[in-house]
Amino acid sequence: MIRIAVDAMGGDHAPGAVVDGALLAAKGLGVEIVLVGSKEAVDRELSRRSVRDSAIQTIHASQVVAMGESPSATLKKRDSSMMVAFQLMKRGEVEAVVSAGNSGAMMATGMFVLGNLPLVDRPAIMVVVPTLLKGAVIIDAGANVDCKPHHLVQFGLMGSIYAEKVLGIPRPRVGALSNGEEEGKGNDLTRAASEQLRSTPLNYIGYVEGRDINSGGVDVVVCDGFTGNVALKTMEGVAGFILQVLKEAFRENTLTRLSYLLSRGALHRAYNRLDYAEYGGAPLLGLNGVAIVAHGGSGPKAIKNAIRVAKETVAHDVNRLIVEVLERLGETHKEDGLPHKVWRHIRSKIDKISERPAAEGEGRENKSGGKG
Amino acid sequence: MIRIAVDAMGGDHAPGAVVDGALLAAKGLGVEIVLVGSKEAVDRELSRRSVRDSAIQTIHASQVVAMGESPSATLKKRDSSMMVAFQLMKRGEVEAVVSAGNSGAMMATGMFVLGNLPLVDRPAIMVVVPTLLKGAVIIDAGANVDCKPHHLVQFGLMGSIYAEKVLGIPRPRVGALSNGEEEGKGNDLTRAASEQLRSTPLNYIGYVEGRDINSGGVDVVVCDGFTGNVALKTMEGVAGFILQVLKEAFRENTLTRLSYLLSRGALHRAYNRLDYAEYGGAPLLGLNGVAIVAHGGSGPKAIKNAIRVAKETVAHDVNRLIVEVLERLGETHKEDGLPHKVWRHIRSKIDKISERPAAEGEGRENKSGGKG
Repeated sequence: MIRIAVDAMGGDHAPGAVVDGALLAAKGLGVEIVLVGSKEAVDRELSRRSVRDSAIQTIHASQVVAMGESPSATLKKRDSSMMVAFQLMKRGEVEAVVSAGNSGAMMATGMFVLGNLPLVDRPAIMVVVPTLLKGAVIIDAGANVDCKPHHLVQFGLMGSIYAEKVLGIPRPRVGALSNGEEEGKGNDLTRAASEQLRSTPLNYIGYVEGRDINSGGVDVVVCDGFTGNVALKTMEGVAGFILQVLKEAFRENTLTRLSYLLSRGALHRAYNRLDYAEYGGAPLLGLNGVAIVAHGGSGPKAIKNAIRVAKETVAHDVNRLIVEVLERLGETHKEDGLPHKVWRHIRSKIDKISERPAAEGEGRENKSGGKG
Repeated sequence: MIRIAVDAMGGDHAPGAVVDGALLAAKGLGVEIVLVGSKEAVDRELSRRSVRDSAIQTIHASQVVAMGESPSATLKKRDSSMMVAFQLMKRGEVEAVVSAGNSGAMMATGMFVLGNLPLVDRPAIMVVVPTLLKGAVIIDAGANVDCKPHHLVQFGLMGSIYAEKVLGIPRPRVGALSNGEEEGKGNDLTRAASEQLRSTPLNYIGYVEGRDINSGGVDVVVCDGFTGNVALKTMEGVAGFILQVLKEAFRENTLTRLSYLLSRGALHRAYNRLDYAEYGGAPLLGLNGVAIVAHGGSGPKAIKNAIRVAKETVAHDVNRLIVEVLERLGETHKEDGLPHKVWRHIRSKIDKISERPAAEGEGRENKSGGKG
């Protein structure tokens, strides 16, 4: 049975909503949960619900990471619930970590404890958003604000593997988020990344626009973390705005109130199609381990769904696939295949892993390296 | 009476929808319209409606700018409806140009015929989006994909003047669009721009996020044209997606269909609050003239509202105010006030305008300049 550490102290409604979500997951998903956090607070929540579920265990952590906290402040808290959860994964006691806490702190702690996967330069936040079809992923949704083109290529590879294996989309269509679909559009970053993406084995369809994200016309939306975060939060904002306007419309008079009552079920189902909580948490792809960030405002259902995402990411062995694909890409794409820079970069990583001496020049490097 | 040139050939539904929009505007807004385009096509549309409105005039142009066309291809068409319209403005025969055509071509043609306002480096597309309150503006929504920090400062100044004078928002709150509200967030561009914005007389409130755009918490959202375009099209995409999901919900069964009938009026009013057509066109701020881009899919109502925006921009003398504020800023903010770079930049522009010799060094510059 897959064992997952859940940060009991993360999120706006912790620990109550987290404990409820963990209980739902233990019951419904067939996973074992380790709740990490203030033992007193967590046990109080558990006893209040008077449940004894053998699939739920508690491990104490004395510190809590705050929402606005900087990564450097976070890393000083060696006994935070987040840090302790990642250390459980490092020791092989759990296979994934789930938290509704500070996503920047999650990334920093994950990198500190686990590091990145071989060949991956920059882990990224991947978010699944609803579409008229199966859903699409945005990667990076906020981890890396200033990116190089080859980072976007790696995001595309990681997102594509996830979309294929976990979301079950065969040969996912990968698009680079841009300000227009024509080749001449884009900025310096997307133009270079687009050229590189075109020469990978990915099903790259070129530029996509903001309005394509939810249309079902693209499965993997690749962008730097700044742009992805703006797009994602804009989606949230517009959705909230429209729901507010609709609420006011239904409250207008007796007839509109009656109208709402008649279609309440259908509207509720429509709302669920739009609700982030249905889509669970956001995997931090590229970490050397499985880490899922749930929305800060997560209720029990969202926590349960984030745990489901963790389970699926583990079960489909997404990380092993990412490493394999990047390795294969480095081997089959010789210098004339993949754009030279990407190839050289991947190659140098492979060299490092296989620990072959890098031939001439290495001795010199070591000498000058000693000074630093 | 304000006289406005309208590109009769621009947009997906031209010339029919444009002619209808122009008629609505001539009747409802008290403006004179010059329809520019194929005289045959426009006159056919006018005679089909069998109206004779003395406030509407037609001027022939033999060429049409296509939607996907590059700026360089556009500028070769010296008799396009867009080019002829801008030349009318250049000669002082109209005070504004409105087109639902290719926005990149509009900007290129506007720059070619009119140039930019003194002190403005980069004209920008400004879009008004609906909010729970009065509406907010996004600037730049797509003209400049790669920007320098001082461009964003100028966008903030222009957007703020427009929001105050045309939208009637006293002391507009200006925010820089970013991936988080904390100071540590942002990318290289926004961090530098934010620092510069803080030292202007603008009512700068710091970073805002995608979810703040529609909330009413900010009046002027400043960003580079790449980010602004992604945000804007994401808003469009999400709105379309939600409306589609709602439509399906109301079609579910007899009860939901009945429910729709009962609240149709209220839902229609809600839809109008969200509809871009209600907000009219997007001014190209910073051009040495008034140019308004309407949405490519504009129907008659959207065309009419774009003409209304043109009229208001002329009536409030937005361009004169922009120049005045930039001049005053250059005078009152000595080197220790505004960040040095912005100041120096504005100062050099003022120097150029007042045509004072730039003292020592200028002779040398002229000599080496002669070689190029």
